[in-house]
Amino acid sequence: MTRPTNTDESATLTIGVVQHTCGADRKLNLARAIAGIEDAADRGAELVLLQELHNHAYFCHTENPDNFDLAESVPGPTTKALGDVARRTDTCIVGSVFERRTAGLYHNTAVVLERNGSVAGIYRKMHIPDDPGYQEKFYFTPGDQGFRPIETSVGRLGVLVCWDQWYPEAARLMTLAGAEMLLFPSAIGWDPVDDTAERQRQRDSWVTIQRGHAIANGLPVACSNRVGDEQTANHRSASIFWGTSFVCGPQGEMMWQAGADRSQVGVVAIDRHRSEHVRRIWPFLRDRRIDSYGDISKRFTD
Amino acid sequence: MTRPTNTDESATLTIGVVQHTCGADRKLNLARAIAGIEDAADRGAELVLLQELHNHAYFCHTENPDNFDLAESVPGPTTKALGDVARRTDTCIVGSVFERRTAGLYHNTAVVLERNGSVAGIYRKMHIPDDPGYQEKFYFTPGDQGFRPIETSVGRLGVLVCWDQWYPEAARLMTLAGAEMLLFPSAIGWDPVDDTAERQRQRDSWVTIQRGHAIANGLPVACSNRVGDEQTANHRSASIFWGTSFVCGPQGEMMWQAGADRSQVGVVAIDRHRSEHVRRIWPFLRDRRIDSYGDISKRFTD
Repeated sequence: MTRPTNTDESATLTIGVVQHTCGADRKLNLARAIAGIEDAADRGAELVLLQELHNHAYFCHTENPDNFDLAESVPGPTTKALGDVARRTDTCIVGSVFERRTAGLYHNTAVVLERNGSVAGIYRKMHIPDDPGYQEKFYFTPGDQGFRPIETSVGRLGVLVCWDQWYPEAARLMTLAGAEMLLFPSAIGWDPVDDTAERQRQRDSWVTIQRGHAIANGLPVACSNRVGDEQTANHRSASIFWGTSFVCGPQGEMMWQAGADRSQVGVVAIDRHRSEHVRRIWPFLRDRRIDSYGDISKRFTD
Repeated sequence: MTRPTNTDESATLTIGVVQHTCGADRKLNLARAIAGIEDAADRGAELVLLQELHNHAYFCHTENPDNFDLAESVPGPTTKALGDVARRTDTCIVGSVFERRTAGLYHNTAVVLERNGSVAGIYRKMHIPDDPGYQEKFYFTPGDQGFRPIETSVGRLGVLVCWDQWYPEAARLMTLAGAEMLLFPSAIGWDPVDDTAERQRQRDSWVTIQRGHAIANGLPVACSNRVGDEQTANHRSASIFWGTSFVCGPQGEMMWQAGADRSQVGVVAIDRHRSEHVRRIWPFLRDRRIDSYGDISKRFTD
C-alpha cells in the first residue's frame, strides 16, 4: 500500500498510538510494539507513536550498573527493526531507545523512522526525572540537542519524552521551532502506596498539563504511555503504569483516550488545518511579551 | 473582627471569589463587587478576588475614544472604595481598574488592597488581546512592570489578568519570582455566533490551561470571571461572559467552580502547605533546563 505524502493541502493525518505491557522478554516487548504498529497501519495510521522504552520492563526503579547492558547504539538493532516495519507498513514511526552513545554516556532517546525505513531524526530526552521508582538520573545523560522538531513526510514532529511533558518551556520551544504537533512517548505510573484519590489527581494532572500545551500552542498532542503493574519485591520502588494514552486537538479537546488497565491501540484522524483556524481565533503567538521573558532562563528570581 | 496574619506556620488560607453581572451603572457594578466581598468575608475569606474591570460593562467591544472617560488614576476612587472595604472586612482584596496613567497612556491594572486599606501593589496587564469583541489594544498599553508578585499579609500574590492566563511564561515567571498562588481577574465569554460544541471547547480550554499553570508550577490558582450576556445591537462584537470562576489546588485539582449563568460568590479554604508537599513529589523546578530555554525570548525560530 502506498499513500500520498502529506502536504499542507491534505487535510487529514491519521495517527496511531500504541500502549502495551512490558515484561522481562525484550524480544516479546518489541514484538508487541510491532504488532501494535501493524494494527494501527491496517486501520489507516500514517504516523504511529510508541511508548517510552518499549523494548524493556521499566528498569529505572533501581540503580544497577548491569542495566547499561540493555543500551544499544542509534542507529542500531531497534532502529533497524522499526525501520523495516515502517517500510513494510508505509508508516512513519516514533519509537524509543535506551541509547549508548559511548562508554559512560547513555541517553533516553526517541527515534523517528521515515516511511522508507530511514532514520528521520532523533530527540534525546532533555528533562530527566529522579524520584522514588524513577531513578533516571543514574541512567540517562540529559539531552544536548535542545528542542528541534523532526522533519518527516507526515509533518514536522515535536517529539518530547515523558518528564518533558511537565515543562511548558519544552512545548513552547518546539512550537516556536515550527513543530506541527507534539508527541510524547511516556512511562509513568502510580506508586502502590498512594490512595485512590491521589492516584486520580496524579493521572488527571498528567492529562491536563499536556492538554494545556496543546491549548497554549494551538497544536495537537499525542501521548503513548505504558500500562501494567511492574511491581517487584521492593514494594516502594516500582510502579503501576497508568496507560491512559491519548490524542487531543489544538484546543485541548480530547479525541481519543485509552484505559488504565490494558494494552490498546488507538487510531485518530486529526485535521491538519485546525491549528491554522484555532490560532486565528486565539492568536497567542502574536502577543507573547518576548521583551519580558528573559528570566525564564534563571533558576529562581525571588 | 481581627484575624491573625498568615505566616508559614498557619496552614489554611481562605479565598473568596466574586463573579457578577455588570450593567451600565458604574456605581451599581461596584456595589455588587463590594456586596460580594462582604459576603465572602462573612464566610471567612481572608483574600477576595474580583473580576476584570468590575466597575464597568465591558466596553472594549468597540473602539470609542469617549470610553477613556471611564479611566481613573491609581490610587484613585476605586482603590479608595476597595481600601475602605478591605479595612472594614479585614480582607485583602484583588480588584481591577481601568487606569489612566497620563494623557494617552492607559492600562488594564489589577490593584491589591491590604487589610488596613493601603495599596499593597499593582499589576499592569502584560498580554493585551485584540480580536472581534475584545479590541483591547485600542485601550490598554501593555504593562511595563513585568511579572512581580505582590507582597501581602496573606502571602505573595501572583496577580495576572485575563489574556495573561493563556501564557505559560507569565505563570512561570511569577512562580520563579516567588508567587505562592496565581490570581486571575478575567472577562471572557462566548461569541454569540459560535455553536454549543465550540463554546464548550473554549470554556474547557480556558479552565484547562489555568489548571495546567497550577500543575506546572505546583501552586493554587484562583480565577474570577464576569458573567452575563452583554450583547449590544451589534451582534458580532459583544460577548456572553461565561462565568465559571474557579479555584484549583497545586495539582490542578478543582476545589470550587461557579456556573456560567449567574452571579456567585465562592469561598474556598486552601492548604498553604500543599505546594511544599506537591513540589517534593513532583520537583519540576529542580530539573528545568535553564541552559536551553533562551529561544523563549524569540518570536519564532523556524
